[in-house]
Amino acid sequence: MTDSGISWRGRGTEPEAVDRFYSVIPAGGIGSRLWPLSRASAPKFLHDLTGSGQTILRDTWNRLAPISGTDRIMVVTGRAHRAAVEAQLPELSDANIVLESEGKDSSAAIGLAAAILEKREPGVIIGSFAADHVVGDNRRFRQAVIEAVALADAGYIATIGMQPTEPAIAFGYIHCGGPVTIAGAPSALSVTGFVEKPSLEIAKEYVDSGSYLWNAGMFIARADRLLEQLGKTQPRLLAGLREIADAWDGPDRGAVVDRVWPGLTKIAIDYSVAEPSAKEGVLAVVPADFPWDDVGDFASLAKLQSGGRKNELAILGEHTRVLADSSSGIVVSETGRLITLIGVEGIVVVDTPDALLVTTSEHAQRVKSVVDALKLSGRTDVL
Amino acid sequence: MTDSGISWRGRGTEPEAVDRFYSVIPAGGIGSRLWPLSRASAPKFLHDLTGSGQTILRDTWNRLAPISGTDRIMVVTGRAHRAAVEAQLPELSDANIVLESEGKDSSAAIGLAAAILEKREPGVIIGSFAADHVVGDNRRFRQAVIEAVALADAGYIATIGMQPTEPAIAFGYIHCGGPVTIAGAPSALSVTGFVEKPSLEIAKEYVDSGSYLWNAGMFIARADRLLEQLGKTQPRLLAGLREIADAWDGPDRGAVVDRVWPGLTKIAIDYSVAEPSAKEGVLAVVPADFPWDDVGDFASLAKLQSGGRKNELAILGEHTRVLADSSSGIVVSETGRLITLIGVEGIVVVDTPDALLVTTSEHAQRVKSVVDALKLSGRTDVL
Repeated sequence: MTDSGISWRGRGTEPEAVDRFYSVIPAGGIGSRLWPLSRASAPKFLHDLTGSGQTILRDTWNRLAPISGTDRIMVVTGRAHRAAVEAQLPELSDANIVLESEGKDSSAAIGLAAAILEKREPGVIIGSFAADHVVGDNRRFRQAVIEAVALADAGYIATIGMQPTEPAIAFGYIHCGGPVTIAGAPSALSVTGFVEKPSLEIAKEYVDSGSYLWNAGMFIARADRLLEQLGKTQPRLLAGLREIADAWDGPDRGAVVDRVWPGLTKIAIDYSVAEPSAKEGVLAVVPADFPWDDVGDFASLAKLQSGGRKNELAILGEHTRVLADSSSGIVVSETGRLITLIGVEGIVVVDTPDALLVTTSEHAQRVKSVVDALKLSGRTDVL
Repeated sequence: MTDSGISWRGRGTEPEAVDRFYSVIPAGGIGSRLWPLSRASAPKFLHDLTGSGQTILRDTWNRLAPISGTDRIMVVTGRAHRAAVEAQLPELSDANIVLESEGKDSSAAIGLAAAILEKREPGVIIGSFAADHVVGDNRRFRQAVIEAVALADAGYIATIGMQPTEPAIAFGYIHCGGPVTIAGAPSALSVTGFVEKPSLEIAKEYVDSGSYLWNAGMFIARADRLLEQLGKTQPRLLAGLREIADAWDGPDRGAVVDRVWPGLTKIAIDYSVAEPSAKEGVLAVVPADFPWDDVGDFASLAKLQSGGRKNELAILGEHTRVLADSSSGIVVSETGRLITLIGVEGIVVVDTPDALLVTTSEHAQRVKSVVDALKLSGRTDVL
């Protein structure tokens, strides 16, 4: 592994793009726990969940563009979302959009991006950041990415781990080891383990111990190193991805994709790369404490909107009109109807033209089971 | 006062109409506590609140028609509701619809009906029954009316009082005295007082005492006696009503109504007739224990629908589609949208094309304050 080869491109008061770095935005996943706002036709990343006036996909793009450069962001998304994604990201070139015929989970999505980019630009460093997470401080995010890029340049599989603010059970945890001595990554730690979403009791232990971070699903690595690690656990998947990547920029892309993609193994990159790399001692983490949320359900959306304050009523939606009396929680509306709340606390009201959801923050995680029930009953018209 | 002159018209297995009896249905009042279901343009009595498949105005008509005869039911309603009322009651003749240019409360509404009918048919007995109450047993209702008609025929102002099933604070109470000995009214009692909606504590005392009944707003009297009693407390109101009634069936109706009606005093008949008659000793009550409800708010609507069982979810609306998980309360929908409830108990969801209400049974009475707030803020488009 080499020492840091990171440098700035250009100079000026504006932050400049990080050399050799390419951002990858996997824009998949419907966000079932945000139904009926999120739909197959309008997944989570195509909504304005922050009240910023733009989709969180666009927020993600705007956060990454100053780091990698506008022409160095690749988006991996479903074919069905091509038009919506391009409308959100007019700067996105055809070369930088990867369309999946069907979702194959994060190993295939990020792996294909890595394989394509590595072929085009050997030695490229990629950073993968979900299209549908929210980051509250782009400056600190950038600092963490720069440290992670230094780790990646040194051969590590790097991740950015979030300082836990509560014993959340909706996130995986990263067990941190000792410091990693890499120039340009002063706060980096080794990772001794990746842990699945824990029970509340265990989450409390983790948080109290001070040696665990939330897994925010951000992975930064040299593309060749990422693929090498993937190949150790998923050699057939890697072979398939390389076959597609080899054909990608030529005339046979369509035929090869159609032949190979459907047979690829669906597996999260946490399992195929991160966990094994942690065991091998080549995973490092940059601890970060900027506000971050994966907006996993309406409870977290409510919290995000209210800044964590109780007894507040968060309101989302361009034309949402709410008349509330002694009520707290969150209202999301796409209909422009007058929504009146009386004496309902911690309520979740999601008002769309064809479906209405009423629940509470406490039960927000159960929204997914409703979506599952609708699927089973064939009510796909509202999914 | 004479002894009972009540007789049956005709014979047969079907109940026959009660002689000399005329039903009056005041169909006024929006039912603000049932907003956004009830509107100025679609008041409570124009809704199917029982799931019977017809409006409660029609239910009321069907309950009264066998007692007074179809051609002896007079409806007093607002001009704005003429078409809707006539659509509901195609049997209603022009002579039997009284249209108010503006609401003037129950003394004017019932008093005008009494004055018109007394002029047309001296000695007529009228019974006034709200258009928007629900009665669960038409046979027992009929029996109570027949007893009340006997009391009326003997000169009493009669009412039907409901046996309380709980210490309700949404109803007025009737304080019963001793038996009244009138042929044909074996269960009748004298009334020693009319009491406003009490506090819960006092309501409990009333119910425990066994000598109080709920005031269901049903008044039965000879029209001349009712007007006589009204004239004792509201002589100017009576004079106005008589002036209108004298012109009613002639060419000057419109002019006289336009001149006199706007100046009439707004006062509930409970205050102008019932209370003073109780003091005078000429008010009598027929205790009744058929299921009855004024469906005053969504809590009582929920209770009505569930038969009082807790943990049930009542669903109203022809096209209402609900997917519920661990939820109870009531859902009323006019939109046909899929409504999903998760973990909300005692919830009230009222879903209309331009307004959505979410509250709980506990807070159902507060819906009126929202309507008041909307009025004050000029948001009359949704009222």
